[in-house]
Amino acid sequence: MTINKRLGKHTINFATPISISAFASVVGPLEKKGPLGDYFQYTMEDNYDGEMSWEKSEQKMMQHALEIALAKRGYLSKDLDYFLAGDLLNQIICANFTARSLGVPFFGLYGACSTLVEGLILGSIIIDGGFGERVGVAASSHHETAERQLRFPTEMVVQRPMTAQWTVTGSGAYILEKNIGDVVITQGVVGKILDMGMANASDLGSAMAPAAADTIVQYFKDTQRNPQDIDLIVTGDLGNIGRILCEELVLQQGYDISKNFSDCGVLIYDPSQDTHAGGSGCGCSASVLAGYLIPKLIEGSLNSIFIVGTGALLSPTSTQQGETIPSIAHGVVIQRK
Amino acid sequence: MTINKRLGKHTINFATPISISAFASVVGPLEKKGPLGDYFQYTMEDNYDGEMSWEKSEQKMMQHALEIALAKRGYLSKDLDYFLAGDLLNQIICANFTARSLGVPFFGLYGACSTLVEGLILGSIIIDGGFGERVGVAASSHHETAERQLRFPTEMVVQRPMTAQWTVTGSGAYILEKNIGDVVITQGVVGKILDMGMANASDLGSAMAPAAADTIVQYFKDTQRNPQDIDLIVTGDLGNIGRILCEELVLQQGYDISKNFSDCGVLIYDPSQDTHAGGSGCGCSASVLAGYLIPKLIEGSLNSIFIVGTGALLSPTSTQQGETIPSIAHGVVIQRK
Repeated sequence: MTINKRLGKHTINFATPISISAFASVVGPLEKKGPLGDYFQYTMEDNYDGEMSWEKSEQKMMQHALEIALAKRGYLSKDLDYFLAGDLLNQIICANFTARSLGVPFFGLYGACSTLVEGLILGSIIIDGGFGERVGVAASSHHETAERQLRFPTEMVVQRPMTAQWTVTGSGAYILEKNIGDVVITQGVVGKILDMGMANASDLGSAMAPAAADTIVQYFKDTQRNPQDIDLIVTGDLGNIGRILCEELVLQQGYDISKNFSDCGVLIYDPSQDTHAGGSGCGCSASVLAGYLIPKLIEGSLNSIFIVGTGALLSPTSTQQGETIPSIAHGVVIQRK
Repeated sequence: MTINKRLGKHTINFATPISISAFASVVGPLEKKGPLGDYFQYTMEDNYDGEMSWEKSEQKMMQHALEIALAKRGYLSKDLDYFLAGDLLNQIICANFTARSLGVPFFGLYGACSTLVEGLILGSIIIDGGFGERVGVAASSHHETAERQLRFPTEMVVQRPMTAQWTVTGSGAYILEKNIGDVVITQGVVGKILDMGMANASDLGSAMAPAAADTIVQYFKDTQRNPQDIDLIVTGDLGNIGRILCEELVLQQGYDISKNFSDCGVLIYDPSQDTHAGGSGCGCSASVLAGYLIPKLIEGSLNSIFIVGTGALLSPTSTQQGETIPSIAHGVVIQRK
């Protein structure tokens, strides 16, 4: 029987479930002190980790996450058929410099905080389509590199509004292949860009909530599934404010996700850590999925998750020129085999 | 008979040839005055084209190229299953804002000047793998937006070294599907990153030449084909200096491409236009392929081309931090049916 690889406009059914055969997370000290601190594989000593710049330490973090993931299966980088990666930095230099060390075919991606899930979908497409057998996927963000590039250098100690999220210092890396290990990607949902006219770059959770809600609702419509068919629906990083808005927007479309909906940006910090609206950045969902969520699938406390990476696709230039904030959300369904 | 979709480490054989069913190019006035000027579909009046900023005019240019391509087949944007795009600007805002207007599933890419070919490969993978039937791919660059972001604002009139290339103001858009029209993508070559230690951000052609040569040689090795099996081998934008280096590096590996090798950055400007080492930017190969090369395949003066998009994956930040320049090159073989 031929499986229909497309359901509706947005959802992909993979003919062969794509195994996440290995995965690893590396984070910074603040993330280590948060509620999920014990779950991450490796913590940097400080946000430099012995490097001369924050950017170099972010690149090292992505490299380290990938190396740990490869080592878990005894693979070398040359065992990868492709590497797909991205980050928040201009010209995605962390991904490029990580790929430089690997010597394998590379696709660079930019989807802001949706990058990890974008990579998991494209990696699964490559394997399911028969174009490769083993794909590495990684994403990272770093508080200091992102803040000085996208907002204000942290040394300026600019007061952050309560709607602002805190860019996570973290990276997650994943190895995709067929029939190895206990967790598989079964479906992908490719998002479209939505822009509801929000222009406040210090409230990205509100800007991204409609895109996240759209992708979640599209998935239920495309597959005729319901929220209770999935153990946990978890957005990439809407934070506290965006998470509430998203839940409300999904409810308006007739789907009640209040019982099994969470957000990586809400999970990663404790309110006492003064991160205001919660975590954000490519490294947020990348590290929480690898560190906390996939292990829950493996140990059996969850059987299925729908992780929805959310990206705010603005730049400082677009904001300065008076543009509003386009947002996107991509999702994958990951199941315990 | 099952076609082997992979040949060697880098080359993909598409089981079904992927048609480039429509394509369009939009350029600025300097490109219009160059040797290929009459071939481009549309020329902007000036580098603003009625917009308030160069960035907005670049985005309009990409949008316009895509709209012309869609119109050639009578398609609306909603007829696309996916849109894949990228540009040189931080956070790829031209691609994001173009995708915002479409309302279709979107993958954002960053591969510097290799972005167009990266998109053509991934778009072909999506269609060949059965994940969608019609994919739009676009890339753009703009002289003023790129120079002020990556080097110096053009208003500063900084003297450019003779090794520097001129960022093309241009965009190209492509519609991929099955069995429509006269030209097809038959193979893709996914590059790996090479970095030979070059650190001069004003001589990117020399930095990218080894990556281009590697992808060209890999293709011949993977497929056991020879340079004479392809009518034209054309790099994305090595410019005059990089083109010569690339030819030499390929010869050192035993393949003589001197008889049928050119470069989009060499083709697009006349030496009298004072662009020094030739054209560069995502929009260079994107506009030359759509404006000049594919029409040559359709009219029959060429039967096959191997276009190799080359990207220098540096950022101003990486250069300031003393890093060298990682480069990549992706190729696709396009044939007359």
